[in-house]
Amino acid sequence: MGNTIKTGIIGGTGYTGLALLEVLVRHPNVELGFVTTRQESLSGEYVHREHPNLYGLSDLKFSIYKPEDPSFKEANQLLLKQVRDSDVIFLGVPSGVSMTLIKDFLDTGTKIIDTSADFRLRDPALYKEFYGRDHPLPELLKDFIYGLPELHREEIKNAKYIACPGCNSTAMILAGYPLTKIENLDFKVTYTIMTGSSEAGSEPSRASHHAERSGVTRPYSIKEHRHLAEVRQELKLPPLKVGVSMFAVPMVRGVECIGNVFTNRPVEEKELWKAFRSAYEGSPFIRIRARKTGGPGSLPDTKYVRGSNFGDVGFFLDEKHGRIGVLSAIDNLVKGDAGNAIQSMNLMFGLNETTRLKDMVPSYLFE
Amino acid sequence: MGNTIKTGIIGGTGYTGLALLEVLVRHPNVELGFVTTRQESLSGEYVHREHPNLYGLSDLKFSIYKPEDPSFKEANQLLLKQVRDSDVIFLGVPSGVSMTLIKDFLDTGTKIIDTSADFRLRDPALYKEFYGRDHPLPELLKDFIYGLPELHREEIKNAKYIACPGCNSTAMILAGYPLTKIENLDFKVTYTIMTGSSEAGSEPSRASHHAERSGVTRPYSIKEHRHLAEVRQELKLPPLKVGVSMFAVPMVRGVECIGNVFTNRPVEEKELWKAFRSAYEGSPFIRIRARKTGGPGSLPDTKYVRGSNFGDVGFFLDEKHGRIGVLSAIDNLVKGDAGNAIQSMNLMFGLNETTRLKDMVPSYLFE
Amino acid sequence: MGNTIKTGIIGGTGYTGLALLEVLVRHPNVELGFVTTRQESLSGEYVHREHPNLYGLSDLKFSIYKPEDPSFKEANQLLLKQVRDSDVIFLGVPSGVSMTLIKDFLDTGTKIIDTSADFRLRDPALYKEFYGRDHPLPELLKDFIYGLPELHREEIKNAKYIACPGCNSTAMILAGYPLTKIENLDFKVTYTIMTGSSEAGSEPSRASHHAERSGVTRPYSIKEHRHLAEVRQELKLPPLKVGVSMFAVPMVRGVECIGNVFTNRPVEEKELWKAFRSAYEGSPFIRIRARKTGGPGSLPDTKYVRGSNFGDVGFFLDEKHGRIGVLSAIDNLVKGDAGNAIQSMNLMFGLNETTRLKDMVPSYLFE
Amino acid sequence: MGNTIKTGIIGGTGYTGLALLEVLVRHPNVELGFVTTRQESLSGEYVHREHPNLYGLSDLKFSIYKPEDPSFKEANQLLLKQVRDSDVIFLGVPSGVSMTLIKDFLDTGTKIIDTSADFRLRDPALYKEFYGRDHPLPELLKDFIYGLPELHREEIKNAKYIACPGCNSTAMILAGYPLTKIENLDFKVTYTIMTGSSEAGSEPSRASHHAERSGVTRPYSIKEHRHLAEVRQELKLPPLKVGVSMFAVPMVRGVECIGNVFTNRPVEEKELWKAFRSAYEGSPFIRIRARKTGGPGSLPDTKYVRGSNFGDVGFFLDEKHGRIGVLSAIDNLVKGDAGNAIQSMNLMFGLNETTRLKDMVPSYLFE
Repeated sequence: MGNTIKTGIIGGTGYTGLALLEVLVRHPNVELGFVTTRQESLSGEYVHREHPNLYGLSDLKFSIYKPEDPSFKEANQLLLKQVRDSDVIFLGVPSGVSMTLIKDFLDTGTKIIDTSADFRLRDPALYKEFYGRDHPLPELLKDFIYGLPELHREEIKNAKYIACPGCNSTAMILAGYPLTKIENLDFKVTYTIMTGSSEAGSEPSRASHHAERSGVTRPYSIKEHRHLAEVRQELKLPPLKVGVSMFAVPMVRGVECIGNVFTNRPVEEKELWKAFRSAYEGSPFIRIRARKTGGPGSLPDTKYVRGSNFGDVGFFLDEKHGRIGVLSAIDNLVKGDAGNAIQSMNLMFGLNETTRLKDMVPSYLFE
Repeated sequence: MGNTIKTGIIGGTGYTGLALLEVLVRHPNVELGFVTTRQESLSGEYVHREHPNLYGLSDLKFSIYKPEDPSFKEANQLLLKQVRDSDVIFLGVPSGVSMTLIKDFLDTGTKIIDTSADFRLRDPALYKEFYGRDHPLPELLKDFIYGLPELHREEIKNAKYIACPGCNSTAMILAGYPLTKIENLDFKVTYTIMTGSSEAGSEPSRASHHAERSGVTRPYSIKEHRHLAEVRQELKLPPLKVGVSMFAVPMVRGVECIGNVFTNRPVEEKELWKAFRSAYEGSPFIRIRARKTGGPGSLPDTKYVRGSNFGDVGFFLDEKHGRIGVLSAIDNLVKGDAGNAIQSMNLMFGLNETTRLKDMVPSYLFE
Repeated sequence: MGNTIKTGIIGGTGYTGLALLEVLVRHPNVELGFVTTRQESLSGEYVHREHPNLYGLSDLKFSIYKPEDPSFKEANQLLLKQVRDSDVIFLGVPSGVSMTLIKDFLDTGTKIIDTSADFRLRDPALYKEFYGRDHPLPELLKDFIYGLPELHREEIKNAKYIACPGCNSTAMILAGYPLTKIENLDFKVTYTIMTGSSEAGSEPSRASHHAERSGVTRPYSIKEHRHLAEVRQELKLPPLKVGVSMFAVPMVRGVECIGNVFTNRPVEEKELWKAFRSAYEGSPFIRIRARKTGGPGSLPDTKYVRGSNFGDVGFFLDEKHGRIGVLSAIDNLVKGDAGNAIQSMNLMFGLNETTRLKDMVPSYLFE
Repeated sequence: MGNTIKTGIIGGTGYTGLALLEVLVRHPNVELGFVTTRQESLSGEYVHREHPNLYGLSDLKFSIYKPEDPSFKEANQLLLKQVRDSDVIFLGVPSGVSMTLIKDFLDTGTKIIDTSADFRLRDPALYKEFYGRDHPLPELLKDFIYGLPELHREEIKNAKYIACPGCNSTAMILAGYPLTKIENLDFKVTYTIMTGSSEAGSEPSRASHHAERSGVTRPYSIKEHRHLAEVRQELKLPPLKVGVSMFAVPMVRGVECIGNVFTNRPVEEKELWKAFRSAYEGSPFIRIRARKTGGPGSLPDTKYVRGSNFGDVGFFLDEKHGRIGVLSAIDNLVKGDAGNAIQSMNLMFGLNETTRLKDMVPSYLFE
């Protein structure tokens, strides 16, 4: 393998593709060989024609890849050869598409990091419950490692296939995971999540139209969200014990998450501190914010993670109301998407997991 | 009294003062006689020097009123005379200030609509619990009617003194009130509230600095908020049954509220419909949004109430998680502030409660 | 005709339709009989299903109108009958569509207020220069009055057909018009315009996608804009004397305009004051802001007109650079669109031109 | 000197201090020894208490430095020793303060990079014209190099003292500089600039209050701006030939600049291409955007530089109006502030000028 990881991106036009590119164009150990598109008008164009921020940072051009279309047979075959010659590839295609493409990639023997929702759930029944249909490749599910390094660091190091978590699932899991470290604790958690507009992807629609999306605090997926399936799996919680309501808020990047937790017994603050610290010991991107004195940075806020791979977490006790609150804030496109993917890649190839990602300093003046 | 209500505003420089002015300058039945300020530099200046949007809409000038300062003795006495000659006055001063001014106004015999938090709670113990000190005028508390027409319409009609609700309390109460109409229902409700920056008032601070407030989804008052006291009072709930966490989101105007409700027995959707409809029958500003088909306007969203006196409410059932959700959205400066005040005034003086307020058509393109 | 103006809107789903509805649903002298749509899915639906802010304000339902489609023959004929029974109709359809529909409406004898660009230019050559094709109905152009009351008040009172100005043209004309009142002045004006996202209409696209439109200061139509044709016509300026560059800025509503003016002779400040005052004497919606002391409201700012029909104008002298600056700020959907239309209607039917529009108080906290 | 540059920041609490920290905490060749504050409450506190985004990225603590206050004598002396032991220091204090501090630093013999406006102008008369007072240290002005590498690369390499340009000056100079490369061209340029709120610094005020700053397109410094002095100096233009008007627009970071240029003779497009290319050959952070086909990235847009050190420039020809347009877009806190400072430092110490800065990939989804 040497010092350089040869890689490429399948599906580079959407926001996941963009987010992967923003990290990879400056990753010191990566040689980025190809980025694919399904849009014929982009084939052969510089990636910065689609992602103008990358002008001056990459001279890569889009390759067309449409495996189902025989008129692109040659391009498709060339791409598969490039995949075969790579150490790892990133799938940046939408959920539901990865599963239609993956067979050809599996045959190449190359490692795969999939950012879609297709291989995140190990239990086909859970997939069916949340996605409303049978998983077409249930036998593959066990071969994928859930790409959240904070929970699966060692497995990721040895993984061949990674399924990166969703942004909302990352936020819910990071906020709630420490609770599972507390002994003799039975709890019920109801999450409320506030998200930025980039979470919905790059496809224009009325809901994403600037004049309509600006200024909203808008409930959506109010009873449930597909990402809840991942929380059920990772925190090992039954339906009655975990629920979520989603709100769109007027920002572009960010996920803010609060979990309202009711427990079978009183919990002390020092138990929470101990649980959060032990849960994230050795996790360089997790920052605990639970300062009771208030002020800037005392609790997780999307403002302080934007543009970075940090996952900020925190908690509070509301004794009057018999409640624990757990909190998290992430950038949906980094820690909730491409950041997890690159962090996993770093681990898979024996690099420091912070490589390149630590250079992405969040600025609270970005938005 | 005749057809015209003579009135004036004590404290017209802050956002409540602004919001009152925006309604009153075009109220067909109101003669606005004075607006006071504590800033000497504004004394005698047109109100539009402070509120530039009002240029061309009012030629009123600020009067100075500083009752504690003997050097303004003449101005202070003139103001009290104007109060005496008015039918009703609005107090737009901050919480904690109304109580220091009110004695002089009570002596005039004029009706009072106070927008501060000083007289909202009937129980001095509740005041002490939330405001951390004894109420200085506990004997007055019983004389004030809580100015939320949807719950106290008949009392308001006959009221002499009104204490207008807070914006967050209005949102929580409007969302939760229908639950109290359901028979044999015992419930616990945990609110999450998302607010715009204008809620914090017009005083600049680091937290309100544009570069620092933009792009936040920021927890604050995360364990509790003073407005919870009003919810305890109005919904008659003990501390263990009602809690709240607040989040600042990147908008100027608006309060979005979700209450996660856990009940002592299963509740059916038709019970909820019945409860919401009966709770708000005859309330022209309450709009129920609980359309399960989704799409624009299916649930309460700050986007659709901004600039208006509407209070949008809604609900959903999440059987999997054993939860009911209740929702509301208001404009914090109208239905959460000046709108309630003017609606109360309309009722007190025998006008249709929608007078002037119905002309304030929300636009979902305001922000 | 009586006290009530019978009217209807052709094309009520876009933002012009929305803006017209927001004014008309509360206009005291208007009976709004119909609103049409081309979307079959909306036919028979409440207007608030498309414009959720209007819930509770109107029980009107959309009528389908697709004159070119014989399968809607009955609906089309019914609509024409409604037009015939109306005093005036508003065309809220896109530019290029009005001209395809108008013949049928002309036959009804009903007055027409068109908000599109189709009939704004009296000179077919000017139309061809800016729209790149021959006008299909050049003989009609002379029958339309340019619906900017500040320049054509008397003509509008007697008009049968009104072509409402564009938003950018309104801003440029209001800023520059006073210069034409100064004697012996020859000038060249180069405008820069900053616009909100609602100006581009309700059709989603990549450019209007929230994540892509937020945070931009983006040049577009940088060499010229079609609205410049109207400025050429109204200010009687040849191409070399007037130019414009457009910038999209991160707001929803508003047009801010600066004109950099170079003149054949020095101009004194008092000449400017005189010109601006005389140009807009008797124009209730024009507010002059040219206060040299600075501070809020000293110059035109979109913040202070949002949601209203005000057109704020101003000027400054920069002797060092040998330049005059003229400025304007409007809400593109009110003074730049529906507001002009309703103001014209008021004039056409003998009402005070401020009817209903003065109730729309701008708030500087809307966005 | 070795491989590591020893440095520190005088004045680390404002936005310039923040911006310097965001770059320096991850600069591979820098050892950041100290960051000072004037706020006693911050003395000894981690820098992330003031700049919460830096949590996890730096364990540096603020040092107090108040040279005028004898009660901090020990701290002040310690700081001067640290300066003496450094290779270079950055002054992040406000304009007007650098000049009061600099004498002590000059005595240490350490190199200085000043981000304030105090030493940008070589001509004391120009300083007086724009700052309204005599420069207190006119003899020092000639010792400072104007820290814009694109114009002064070689001088910076050998400089001891650098005065970094202002953000608006950077934007105006970068847009206009290529015009000076065109032979036989005499021109007059009138700039219009649109800026984000972070440009005004971190001090709260009414103008920066979120509710008041949101949604504005607000003229300010409409006749002139102090940064114009730098343009006069760098482009060697007399007052009549260069002017500027400033607008605040609703974003946090970014400067967008258009210069309307009128010339003594017609200019061809290929002359412009040649001028822009030759002006910025060898300047790795300048990207020319002048694509006539339109679409994303065709012209400079704040959206595509945010968070990076790129300076995007462009131009267009408007023959009809006899005008050339020049354009630029920068991030005011990077290319307009700390980025220029670090780029200059890199050059001064023989590093590749892109060190660390190229890792700061702009994202068009930051705001």
